[in-house]
Amino acid sequence: MLVDKVVNLLHKIPHVDFHFRRTSDAFSYDYSSPYAQAIAIFAALTALIGLLLLLIIVFTWICQCCRHKDTTVRSRNGARNLTVVLFILSVLCFGLLAASLYGNERLNRSIGKTTNSLDNVHRSLKLAEVQSSLLTSTQQSAQAHVDELVKLIDQKTRESTNINKTLLDEVDGELTSVSDKFEDVQSQLEHLNLELTDSKKLKRTQTYINRFEFDRSALYITLPAIVITVLFIGVISFCRKSRKGSIVFSALGVVTFFVTWALIAIVVPLSIAHADLCSTHDEFVKTHLRHEVYNAYNFYRTCEPSESHKSVPTNLPVNTINDRFTEIQAGEAKLVGQLNTLFNNSADVSAIMRNIEKDISESFKNVGAIEFTLSCYALHDDVTGINDGICYDAVIGSIIMLATTLLSGIFMFILLIVVSQTWYMFNRLPNDYMEVNEEDPFYPRQQDTVIPADIYGTHVFNHR
Amino acid sequence: MLVDKVVNLLHKIPHVDFHFRRTSDAFSYDYSSPYAQAIAIFAALTALIGLLLLLIIVFTWICQCCRHKDTTVRSRNGARNLTVVLFILSVLCFGLLAASLYGNERLNRSIGKTTNSLDNVHRSLKLAEVQSSLLTSTQQSAQAHVDELVKLIDQKTRESTNINKTLLDEVDGELTSVSDKFEDVQSQLEHLNLELTDSKKLKRTQTYINRFEFDRSALYITLPAIVITVLFIGVISFCRKSRKGSIVFSALGVVTFFVTWALIAIVVPLSIAHADLCSTHDEFVKTHLRHEVYNAYNFYRTCEPSESHKSVPTNLPVNTINDRFTEIQAGEAKLVGQLNTLFNNSADVSAIMRNIEKDISESFKNVGAIEFTLSCYALHDDVTGINDGICYDAVIGSIIMLATTLLSGIFMFILLIVVSQTWYMFNRLPNDYMEVNEEDPFYPRQQDTVIPADIYGTHVFNHR
Repeated sequence: MLVDKVVNLLHKIPHVDFHFRRTSDAFSYDYSSPYAQAIAIFAALTALIGLLLLLIIVFTWICQCCRHKDTTVRSRNGARNLTVVLFILSVLCFGLLAASLYGNERLNRSIGKTTNSLDNVHRSLKLAEVQSSLLTSTQQSAQAHVDELVKLIDQKTRESTNINKTLLDEVDGELTSVSDKFEDVQSQLEHLNLELTDSKKLKRTQTYINRFEFDRSALYITLPAIVITVLFIGVISFCRKSRKGSIVFSALGVVTFFVTWALIAIVVPLSIAHADLCSTHDEFVKTHLRHEVYNAYNFYRTCEPSESHKSVPTNLPVNTINDRFTEIQAGEAKLVGQLNTLFNNSADVSAIMRNIEKDISESFKNVGAIEFTLSCYALHDDVTGINDGICYDAVIGSIIMLATTLLSGIFMFILLIVVSQTWYMFNRLPNDYMEVNEEDPFYPRQQDTVIPADIYGTHVFNHR
Repeated sequence: MLVDKVVNLLHKIPHVDFHFRRTSDAFSYDYSSPYAQAIAIFAALTALIGLLLLLIIVFTWICQCCRHKDTTVRSRNGARNLTVVLFILSVLCFGLLAASLYGNERLNRSIGKTTNSLDNVHRSLKLAEVQSSLLTSTQQSAQAHVDELVKLIDQKTRESTNINKTLLDEVDGELTSVSDKFEDVQSQLEHLNLELTDSKKLKRTQTYINRFEFDRSALYITLPAIVITVLFIGVISFCRKSRKGSIVFSALGVVTFFVTWALIAIVVPLSIAHADLCSTHDEFVKTHLRHEVYNAYNFYRTCEPSESHKSVPTNLPVNTINDRFTEIQAGEAKLVGQLNTLFNNSADVSAIMRNIEKDISESFKNVGAIEFTLSCYALHDDVTGINDGICYDAVIGSIIMLATTLLSGIFMFILLIVVSQTWYMFNRLPNDYMEVNEEDPFYPRQQDTVIPADIYGTHVFNHR
């Protein structure tokens, strides 16, 4: 595809650092890295090209100034053609700048899509975190109930004399095993929480992207708006076909040229960085996420979203927690039978057992909620959305911006070269154009008013 | 707040139908309702005002044409002032149209926010639906296991002779009760599914809003873009200060006037409809959602999002389902004890009981996931986001658009009244401006070229 080809082309431009050594072309947002130096060099190079073009313009203008004395009077046709060429060039610049604003809008919306997906993922992880903390508290309550049960059994065995020793030992073993499993769940939950805390990084990334994108987008609207306004004033003053108008147009043209090339010096390195990010996207993600989180990211990107909620990344201990609770439930069921036999269906033991049962079913509910919140079905679309937003939709906007600003920079250059021709052209066609001096026609010279109107002949008052 | 005041003001404009009877001002999107007639009348009225203004312009122009013969030669100052006024008016129109494009952008983004929230709510409901169908299948598997157990008990009682009749009756009663509860869960789930199917309506609403907004936004970008382009051409032709230029400007001015008032005739009724929607928002939602869904909507809007996942709308049978499963679990625990005593810890009975236990814990997981997906914590922000997007952010954009398009329509009117003054003004200042006939300066008359250049005196070549 064309987009991929352009991205590849931009990515393949050799990156060099401040010592002109070839550096890695893998994207990095670290300001002190050799990569940042390479990007700065791209910016500097673009700015240099802009300055060079400005120098060429200045030389052409100086030559134009020196040459003007020995030029012959040009034809009216020449002036007409020149005006048409200038007008077409200005309109082209307007069109290109409008197109680049469209590209900016498109880029902005694509990045909005990405941050939206990031937000959704962050929210899911946050919900899972909340669930996990709820599960922790349920689990602690269950452990408290188990401790209570142990105390009660102790008390009961001390009180009664004819106790079945083997059964008591069995109960003891079962209780220890249940208690151990609760502790295992506790440690697994801590592990899970550790995995989920990376969600804060997502929030930070989102804030960072939003802030950067706001600045970038605002700058990108302001600069073309300045260029368009200045160019508009220029076109109007040059349309009045006065020498003064064409000089105003030239002066304003230098301003727009300067602003446009400043814009290019921002757009070019950003586009290259964007292409680098999308080409080395996987590498970038890998270096910036912990190994487990990167695995989870890959899992969500590649998984088949099915409605079953079994598909949770294998590195998250959700399935282990689930298995532990199943074992705990089985152990609890066994305990109920044994305790009923041991203490002859004692009411207080049954009450505690019911509490533990409630805790276990509550835990199952929490595990179910976590499992579903972290399932492929719930997260797949958002995780792929992050990637697609930045590396598909946004790239199109980026390419439009790059192409249109570069072209408008070049047209602006041609415009400024051509405009110098008009300085004397307009001046040398006195019988076509009235402007013979550098004064503004809005403020005509006072002495001009005394010239009798009839020097033009009678056809002046002939309205036909 | 100012925004609320403007919304109230717009909402209070009396609405009348085609028979000029006062109708309800509650928003409705039904094309055949009296409300739609009222909105159509607003559009027609605005268009009528536009036409009236156009008539005034035409009369002024006709008067200007008839009067021109007896006017005295105007001063140069007059022409200068006129040009400045025209220029300022054009620039004002440009600025206002640019501001209205900003308003459009803002409206578009706000509506995007709303559809995004709608999408999130829809997704949550869809996830809950998936969970609910999973729960149904788990529940069916549990019922199958219970049936299996009944068969096994039947077979065992037939095989063995010394069976405890009272205990068997107890087991029978318990089994019937568990089976009944499963059936109750089934009917509750059907009820829940019925509630959740309204999520399709959300998707439809979202598609509808997106389509409408795309059309509206595209139209609103196209029309001002046409006006800006035409106005630009007009300003350039009038800046050349020729009579022809000012006539071109007048002709193009009529086009822009027409397009601008067409735009106003679209923006005014839409803004009123928007204000109506936001003022009667609650009423609108109430009539378009089923009673239960409306209750749920109100619940999510007003609930306090806390991390506990108990806060589910009371009309959704999630809590009932949860309670049933707790009862089923208690019954199952009792059954285990009874069956162990009855059949002396038989292995095949225990195997089936373990299957039922697994089904119950799986069900608890599903219930937990449903409860959490439908909890206030998960949905509150999105439900309030729908409201805020349309009735807070979007209103600001809507007001900006209304004000700027109305103002630019008025300025365009003044512009067209003023421009007729220039038709003879530019013509009557022959010693200031070269244009003495209606020919284009790009195509000068051939006979003019034979006029010797030195009739102007030597100062022509004096560049100073």
